[in-house]
Amino acid sequence: MSHYVIAVHCGAGYHSTQKEDAYKTLCKTACIKNSELTNAGVGSNLNIRGSVECDAAIMEGKQLMFGAVGAISGVQNPVTVSAKLLTRQLGKKLSLGRLHPSVIVGEGANKWARENGLYTVDTGCLVTDYSRKTFNSHKTKLDILNEKINSKKRKFTVQSQEKSEESCAVLETEEGIQDTVGAIVMDTAGNIASAVSSGGISLKQPGRLGPAATYGAGCWAYNQRPGKPGVGTVTSGSGEHIMKTLLARESALSIQRENNVSLGLSNSFKESFLGCEQIKQQLQSEFLEGEKEKLAGVLALGQNEDKTVEVLWGHTTNSMCIGYMSPTLKRPKVVMSRLPEGGIPGQSFTMSGVSV
Amino acid sequence: MSHYVIAVHCGAGYHSTQKEDAYKTLCKTACIKNSELTNAGVGSNLNIRGSVECDAAIMEGKQLMFGAVGAISGVQNPVTVSAKLLTRQLGKKLSLGRLHPSVIVGEGANKWARENGLYTVDTGCLVTDYSRKTFNSHKTKLDILNEKINSKKRKFTVQSQEKSEESCAVLETEEGIQDTVGAIVMDTAGNIASAVSSGGISLKQPGRLGPAATYGAGCWAYNQRPGKPGVGTVTSGSGEHIMKTLLARESALSIQRENNVSLGLSNSFKESFLGCEQIKQQLQSEFLEGEKEKLAGVLALGQNEDKTVEVLWGHTTNSMCIGYMSPTLKRPKVVMSRLPEGGIPGQSFTMSGVSV
Repeated sequence: MSHYVIAVHCGAGYHSTQKEDAYKTLCKTACIKNSELTNAGVGSNLNIRGSVECDAAIMEGKQLMFGAVGAISGVQNPVTVSAKLLTRQLGKKLSLGRLHPSVIVGEGANKWARENGLYTVDTGCLVTDYSRKTFNSHKTKLDILNEKINSKKRKFTVQSQEKSEESCAVLETEEGIQDTVGAIVMDTAGNIASAVSSGGISLKQPGRLGPAATYGAGCWAYNQRPGKPGVGTVTSGSGEHIMKTLLARESALSIQRENNVSLGLSNSFKESFLGCEQIKQQLQSEFLEGEKEKLAGVLALGQNEDKTVEVLWGHTTNSMCIGYMSPTLKRPKVVMSRLPEGGIPGQSFTMSGVSV
Repeated sequence: MSHYVIAVHCGAGYHSTQKEDAYKTLCKTACIKNSELTNAGVGSNLNIRGSVECDAAIMEGKQLMFGAVGAISGVQNPVTVSAKLLTRQLGKKLSLGRLHPSVIVGEGANKWARENGLYTVDTGCLVTDYSRKTFNSHKTKLDILNEKINSKKRKFTVQSQEKSEESCAVLETEEGIQDTVGAIVMDTAGNIASAVSSGGISLKQPGRLGPAATYGAGCWAYNQRPGKPGVGTVTSGSGEHIMKTLLARESALSIQRENNVSLGLSNSFKESFLGCEQIKQQLQSEFLEGEKEKLAGVLALGQNEDKTVEVLWGHTTNSMCIGYMSPTLKRPKVVMSRLPEGGIPGQSFTMSGVSV
């Protein structure tokens, strides 16, 4: 391996065409100045109480260590805490033979960050004008809907599931709900690492743990070993669906099993996530049985047998914004991938990629 | 399927022969009065700050839903919160199309429990005389060790890793560090569910999330489907090792792959956990490479092709305490499984089981 590769995404979801340029610039910037892409802390979606709680994870492919924080408040770059958790595991054990924790959550995570010399802030600092505005808009919709439901209940009618589903569309087609940023890097020695950071979904339950804090769900990294290609993956989309299918891990294992990045990625989506009928019995699609909309995106970096490296992205969401860079390219490349015309978000799948 | 089966364990670790009868009675009681086995809340190991934080999860094999709480305080039976999270997922979505959370942690989990009508208590009520005594003993050892290390540092000598490893043995051979209880049930219709509950390791970092809150690590359940046998698993042992290898899920998938409970369980231990040399390249053993002691136990319930049901247990720990019951048995059976003479904890594996 003679060159490094960086690949990032800034969410799989719905990106309006009006703001396409802004998203692309964000992805390009992220490729150059890697630290900024993990600023999921500032501008995060607000939870149902109007506050910020973040998830972030990092995995490295050499010793296969994983560090994550979940539902953490008051940290501007949550992934820096995950990274410190990971590096601690690479060192000596704690006294009395205790293992270092791999995942820390909530108030304990914030305290651990402070005790380990990481910078913490007042959680209010993580709220932006935009995130407050989005929260107010979502919260108002929720309150109006709840009032309608309660009013119906008072009239002894049954809660309308149809109404609830209608309203869901209102929220989902808004921007600002793409909640995850992810990055995969490979250095010149072939070491692969991946990281993911997320403020979680808008109006989420305080304490809710999402895929960005869940081992195997948000990111995966594995250096090349005899008989196994190196691979890195990061995911974005409907959190609980990504968690149930351990999408980052399953995509990576599928790529390794097929020894082919594109075949592996497409198989994992079809078999484990979307559950295409013809191959339904084989794998894990039963985990999302009955779900009408299965929304996810995966960004993958994989080594082929001939040592070439591919960056691939596949998604069932309306769109996914990708950036990548390596010394063979003059500047970062950015792609706004969209489902082909007629594709149905949550049911259709599109995939594309490049050798770098 | 014409009868139900209940199988429980009260930890894989080191059980002294003096207290063997007490452990067996506990397992037997748990088989009869299922709710008591989930009392990991009361008497939990205390964390480094002398407080109780618990993890608990439940999974059901029909719709494959999972609910978990992590680092939760002030709840006497944390698995009841996990169960409520799971049942919510089986119902309607939240308003505005939001998915129900699958995992909730920390203070948010406690609040969610209260808001959902579950009983919460002062966290002090979960501390017993025994857990306080154990904590004091462990904490004293830690303080003495830290003082020694600091004193050496003051003399400009390097921190002694040997010293730290020596001391580890002191803690590990004590009782009270078996931290997990687990149960698998199958009803007369063949529905399988598994649950796990844990106060975590002694002197743990506040906020540390263990396998009992980690999807795929602490428990797994999967009802029989065409071409796939039904299976349930629960695990216990070194938390971070069980998390890295997703031991409950991998054991269950291995049992399904082999379509044979004992072959599947022994393969998953050898290939994914212990990493026997001859088959090392094939699977996941590289995730614990370099670890001298790999301590875990798995209790599994599996259906064979001929519809018979087996309860199996395998462990690399010194001992594992198991109980099981079904209508074909007059009373609950209890087994204290121990490594055979000459077996080395963390390196050797023993397995046993029964058709029920």
